[in-house]
Amino acid sequence: MSGKPISFARGAPSLDIVDVEGLKAAAQAAFEQDPAGLTAYGTSVGYPPLREWIAEKHGVAPENVIVTNGSMQADAFLFDALVEAGDSVIVELPTYDRTLLSLRGRGADVRMIELEPDGIDVAALERVLLTGTRPKLAHIIPNFQNPAGYTLSLAKRERLLELAREHGFTIFEDDPYVELRFSGERLPTMVSMDPQSVVYASSFSKTVAPGIRVGYLVGPREVIATIERLATGAYISPNMVAQGIVNQFARSGAIEKSIETVKHALQERVTVLSQALARELPEARFVTPEGGYFMWVELPRGTDVSALFSLAAQRGVQFVKGTDFVLEGYESSLRLAYSGVTPAEIEEGVRRLAEAYRELSAGSSSAAD
Amino acid sequence: MSGKPISFARGAPSLDIVDVEGLKAAAQAAFEQDPAGLTAYGTSVGYPPLREWIAEKHGVAPENVIVTNGSMQADAFLFDALVEAGDSVIVELPTYDRTLLSLRGRGADVRMIELEPDGIDVAALERVLLTGTRPKLAHIIPNFQNPAGYTLSLAKRERLLELAREHGFTIFEDDPYVELRFSGERLPTMVSMDPQSVVYASSFSKTVAPGIRVGYLVGPREVIATIERLATGAYISPNMVAQGIVNQFARSGAIEKSIETVKHALQERVTVLSQALARELPEARFVTPEGGYFMWVELPRGTDVSALFSLAAQRGVQFVKGTDFVLEGYESSLRLAYSGVTPAEIEEGVRRLAEAYRELSAGSSSAAD
Repeated sequence: MSGKPISFARGAPSLDIVDVEGLKAAAQAAFEQDPAGLTAYGTSVGYPPLREWIAEKHGVAPENVIVTNGSMQADAFLFDALVEAGDSVIVELPTYDRTLLSLRGRGADVRMIELEPDGIDVAALERVLLTGTRPKLAHIIPNFQNPAGYTLSLAKRERLLELAREHGFTIFEDDPYVELRFSGERLPTMVSMDPQSVVYASSFSKTVAPGIRVGYLVGPREVIATIERLATGAYISPNMVAQGIVNQFARSGAIEKSIETVKHALQERVTVLSQALARELPEARFVTPEGGYFMWVELPRGTDVSALFSLAAQRGVQFVKGTDFVLEGYESSLRLAYSGVTPAEIEEGVRRLAEAYRELSAGSSSAAD
Repeated sequence: MSGKPISFARGAPSLDIVDVEGLKAAAQAAFEQDPAGLTAYGTSVGYPPLREWIAEKHGVAPENVIVTNGSMQADAFLFDALVEAGDSVIVELPTYDRTLLSLRGRGADVRMIELEPDGIDVAALERVLLTGTRPKLAHIIPNFQNPAGYTLSLAKRERLLELAREHGFTIFEDDPYVELRFSGERLPTMVSMDPQSVVYASSFSKTVAPGIRVGYLVGPREVIATIERLATGAYISPNMVAQGIVNQFARSGAIEKSIETVKHALQERVTVLSQALARELPEARFVTPEGGYFMWVELPRGTDVSALFSLAAQRGVQFVKGTDFVLEGYESSLRLAYSGVTPAEIEEGVRRLAEAYRELSAGSSSAAD
């Protein structure tokens, strides 16, 4: 018997931390206050009041912002605008699997640079640059990275910007989790430190709800104007109804309450997860994240996480294998998402995961006998 | 003085024929009945209950349907799936400008076949096929075509399907206006006549509202499965909130009332437009459409519609030049959209348009003196 399924796989919030009542109220208010704006085609740059709200939040002009159908669509537009087949692109090792797929699908020359607990190894990046690699773009998830949960330090943010200016590449600052810091101190965004060297992406998936599918880019006007043309060609305009609802949710203050709810839950969940792992699976090495959805877990060298995956699945427990976030290696790592599971589920899930690990270890020792 | 601006340019409904109250109610019901479905990521095939509603409506399985962020996004996915650079694609002459742009942007070999008042000239198409052209796709807007307002006859639908089977191409039946027939008899869709030869696209932009950005494709399972993978890569999943609202709007019956409202208004508008043109601008040749948003107007050979466009703009009147819908020629044609203008605006707009035409004619006669 596997028991109730427990998923540490998907980076999505559980329904209990989504403000459904707030969304209903925002939908009513949006249709009442701007029926024409919500129901007409609108423009490819997004619903103007939301675009303005985002611009104000980032201290830029609306012309520096485009609001899209989710931030992955924004990433795709940015890659379409800046990356051609054969172009070098720097990414973190490990990194978000969909970014990897998207870049490889475009024929980019993907260079992975190791991620350390304080962010990308900038010394290693510099060595790559000094060999003559001329990247177009460096994709960086600065806060509570997916999959590692690590955060880029201020010193490394500064160094990355220096390298971008010196070597003429754009930093793609992919920052969907920034609002979900539940401990430690907030760091400035790279786009605020050097608006000309950075295109910044974020989303309302983690602060409102994923199903609302609203993301955005902040960047130099000429880049945003190029992407505006791509967006017109792809879909005329993004979802005005959804963006109108997000606009109301943001301007009414519901978003601040929603963020507090989410952060509180995430902090509780990560605490339970860290304690449960330390207790049940002391072989696991991890850094407790200061925010976000994900924890990266390294098991002893030689652990076959692919086999662990199957043994855990037999017990109804799902996670994502480390190998999904890299081009090669990382066979002994895994990603645990704690955003969609309650504390009780976490306790039970880690218990079953540890059980699967014991079975795996017993199997390999006996096989070695 | 140009007076109040009157736009015959954009194919969009005026706000008075959009059921804003119905949308508000649908939003409430959707969040109440399925908060998890609306707020979670969902899947790339679209919100499952809406996908099922569409499948039932077309008498197919849900696996034959994918629901997208507007039907232009669906078109783009279909072209990505089926059309490579250099592939021949048949389109109507004239046709929707964004389809032309999208196909040319992909490097397709676009072959335009003249549109007659009963639809594409199938004899001309056959001649092209007999010269050895092997198209991948034929893009057909069967009902109340954009820009011409013409409708494909039943006999031509049958002949097109025969040609598709014989020559091995897919018909892309692009049918956003089908529900907006206000006179004459409804004809069967080609996808219902031969589901294997056709991929069908439609949208809720004309029956609910454009800002809701929900479109869909119906087609063979393998084509839909390919597009599902493209959609996952583009945006993970389309807008669940918007699709949940459309699902409620459709299942509650609000959509039927909305369609009645729209059809009634369109019929009134097209009647006023036809009468005003006959009275004020008897030089104009046109076929009064039996549905949809658009009327195609041909002015006497040699009329410089580009100059007319400027003279009309000086009078606050906008339309789209015929040349926007073709690769060459059609300098004396224009498209009038009557969906976004009231009867009074139509009267006044045609009066000003006729005035602009008189000025143009006077100018050319005096220039000829």
